[in-house]
Amino acid sequence: MSKKKAPFSKKQIENLLQTQQTPFYIYDENAMVKNAQKLKNAFAWADFKEYFAVKANANPFILKILKNQNFGADCSSLAELVLSENCEILGENIIFTSNDTPANEFEKAKELGAIINFDDISHIKYYEKNVGKLPELVCLRYNPGDLKSGNNIIGNPLEAKYGFTKKQLLQGYEYCKKAGVKRFGLHAMVASNELDYKYFVETAKILFEETAEISKKLGISFEFVNLGGGIGIPYRPQEKEVDLQKLGGEIKELYEKIIVKNELAPLKVFMECGRMITGPFGYLVSKVLHEKNTYKKFIGLDACMANLMRPALYGAYHHISVLGKEDEKCEITADVTGSLCENNDKFAIDRKLPKVEIGDIFVIHDAGAHGYSMGFNYNGKLRCGEFLMRENGDFLKIRRSETIEDLFVTIDIKKLKEF
Amino acid sequence: MSKKKAPFSKKQIENLLQTQQTPFYIYDENAMVKNAQKLKNAFAWADFKEYFAVKANANPFILKILKNQNFGADCSSLAELVLSENCEILGENIIFTSNDTPANEFEKAKELGAIINFDDISHIKYYEKNVGKLPELVCLRYNPGDLKSGNNIIGNPLEAKYGFTKKQLLQGYEYCKKAGVKRFGLHAMVASNELDYKYFVETAKILFEETAEISKKLGISFEFVNLGGGIGIPYRPQEKEVDLQKLGGEIKELYEKIIVKNELAPLKVFMECGRMITGPFGYLVSKVLHEKNTYKKFIGLDACMANLMRPALYGAYHHISVLGKEDEKCEITADVTGSLCENNDKFAIDRKLPKVEIGDIFVIHDAGAHGYSMGFNYNGKLRCGEFLMRENGDFLKIRRSETIEDLFVTIDIKKLKEF
Repeated sequence: MSKKKAPFSKKQIENLLQTQQTPFYIYDENAMVKNAQKLKNAFAWADFKEYFAVKANANPFILKILKNQNFGADCSSLAELVLSENCEILGENIIFTSNDTPANEFEKAKELGAIINFDDISHIKYYEKNVGKLPELVCLRYNPGDLKSGNNIIGNPLEAKYGFTKKQLLQGYEYCKKAGVKRFGLHAMVASNELDYKYFVETAKILFEETAEISKKLGISFEFVNLGGGIGIPYRPQEKEVDLQKLGGEIKELYEKIIVKNELAPLKVFMECGRMITGPFGYLVSKVLHEKNTYKKFIGLDACMANLMRPALYGAYHHISVLGKEDEKCEITADVTGSLCENNDKFAIDRKLPKVEIGDIFVIHDAGAHGYSMGFNYNGKLRCGEFLMRENGDFLKIRRSETIEDLFVTIDIKKLKEF
Repeated sequence: MSKKKAPFSKKQIENLLQTQQTPFYIYDENAMVKNAQKLKNAFAWADFKEYFAVKANANPFILKILKNQNFGADCSSLAELVLSENCEILGENIIFTSNDTPANEFEKAKELGAIINFDDISHIKYYEKNVGKLPELVCLRYNPGDLKSGNNIIGNPLEAKYGFTKKQLLQGYEYCKKAGVKRFGLHAMVASNELDYKYFVETAKILFEETAEISKKLGISFEFVNLGGGIGIPYRPQEKEVDLQKLGGEIKELYEKIIVKNELAPLKVFMECGRMITGPFGYLVSKVLHEKNTYKKFIGLDACMANLMRPALYGAYHHISVLGKEDEKCEITADVTGSLCENNDKFAIDRKLPKVEIGDIFVIHDAGAHGYSMGFNYNGKLRCGEFLMRENGDFLKIRRSETIEDLFVTIDIKKLKEF
């Protein structure tokens, strides 16, 4: 059926189901840690740090695991800053990459000592006016415009709401220098879910050249470049994961050619990947509730798009395997649906599957990023729980499932009764 | 700037802002009630009932207002059933139109005495096996397949996950009759946000003819047809609302030609509209935080797609007016953005607007359906509060805004500390 296989057996899940109900997420701790090490190894030549893009998976237990890998947190909202604080990821282990930012979020970032990555030239004065003196270390977000094409998912940089133009970048650093800023960083992020490593090599080249140019013009020296995130994952069995060694290797060549040669070393290299850090290591586990045969065949699960939006939202492919039937022939073709009252609530369309029985356990792969975190309560649907699979095979509950009571928490029931 | 105007003034909102913070929703109670009466008037010739599609707007205060208009509730999940119960909408004032339904949801519908609208022929036996004897009144959902084209939004009925085929419909009613069911209903829903009233006239024709055919074949009599929902609203200023009088009038003609003539009267007529009931009467109110000028102009609001997803999700048009500047010339063209870390978090692209200042109050129109209810917490964003504007101009808080603490409610903080 596929090369993709869940790291747990049918028996393990059946044991878990003695006390727990589907649907739920399972994250494979061991695989996540190994992958984190792989990324660090690819940049072992550099003073490298990965700031995990918290929006990909905002479970604090996951954040703590990544913290133990010396990862920082890439936050873009007040809640994400508080989450990092709760996980004791503090100071310059946080980069605050926000946009259209309210003053109180800048304040919180300042309080935590986070690296502030300004999205717009107007935000610098906004910060001074509403928060106070600029921090000692400032990063600016570069939008290269037509100097770089965005990939399919993030779209054309000229249309993107993010970042400074090239001209503004120079003005921005000049202003910061005059305002007493001592340490500088440069950031760009123009791709999402990109599988071609060359894309990131190109981005590194643009950033290295930009730091060289600005350093020369303004007489400032850069402490880091942040290459952003956007490294994709192979959702389809036939796709290949990004070759991190090649990625790191080619960026190293550029580093030597541009940074070392121009006497700009040492320059730290940061990334803020999300998807590739947790995506492949999260599984949505769900049971078959119904089989329906009308104009086509539908397999109905007890999970729905409230648990995982990507297929319904983007038509995104997520591989599905049926526990205990991994080696069976795919004899049926079906739409795999959830129960939300939206026709696009389908995890797969015209998917080849082995023969399915009611009660079969479906595993939806590569759901560890932008899965739970994008969930909603539309149609009164509840977001499910999350488990961590430890190295010894134990399952640790790292988030309980929502209850109907949770949905009413923002309603004043007494007032409602009197209304 | 437009024919669309908010029912509240800048001064009223400024008063509200003395104690409240943007963003928030405002619903216009009076306009909602008048519109509800308009729908009932269009079907004054019939024994008519509207079952409000709760997923469009799940605020229980709104539900109570609609209940006072003698509306029922169209529920499709356990939480929506509980919500109706909390609003004292009970018994056959609920129609349970679900799909891929778990047994406990059927049980709750039974407990409340709701009309059960089966989505699939297999669900009938599933109900008998897991819940018990079929209720006295049963409705079946018809998917007319290639006998009817779906509209653009809901898509091709042949691909839709909903409903019985024509053949299954006959088998279903036959089975139910044998099992002792005494009262019957028929339902179809194949459109969403459709502005052409003819579409619903066609649907009525299909359902009337189907009841005539099945009545004759099986010797059963139908108590109601449920025409479903899907009546659209004019999101764009140049669009026209559906002419409900024409809609009701032409359905009346069909009723006489098919139902009365075949001696099938009386037959109740139900609808389950959502969007047209609350959509035009809800407003998302937000303040301008930033103006950004790079390759294009961006106006940054303090609301984001977590508050209203439709523009980011579907590229849907929502009209925007600036309070106090309703009559000013539109001199600028800008993208109106939220602060979520997704490039598609834009309420409008290349929108003509009057000159904007920081602090201006933006009103996003037609946000009363599929607005708050589709909100999520992606990126740590909080869902905002909701206010009801009473007839006397008072604002009643009908939902508080979420807090960061709400986001952590499913996390065991003690366990996290020890982890």
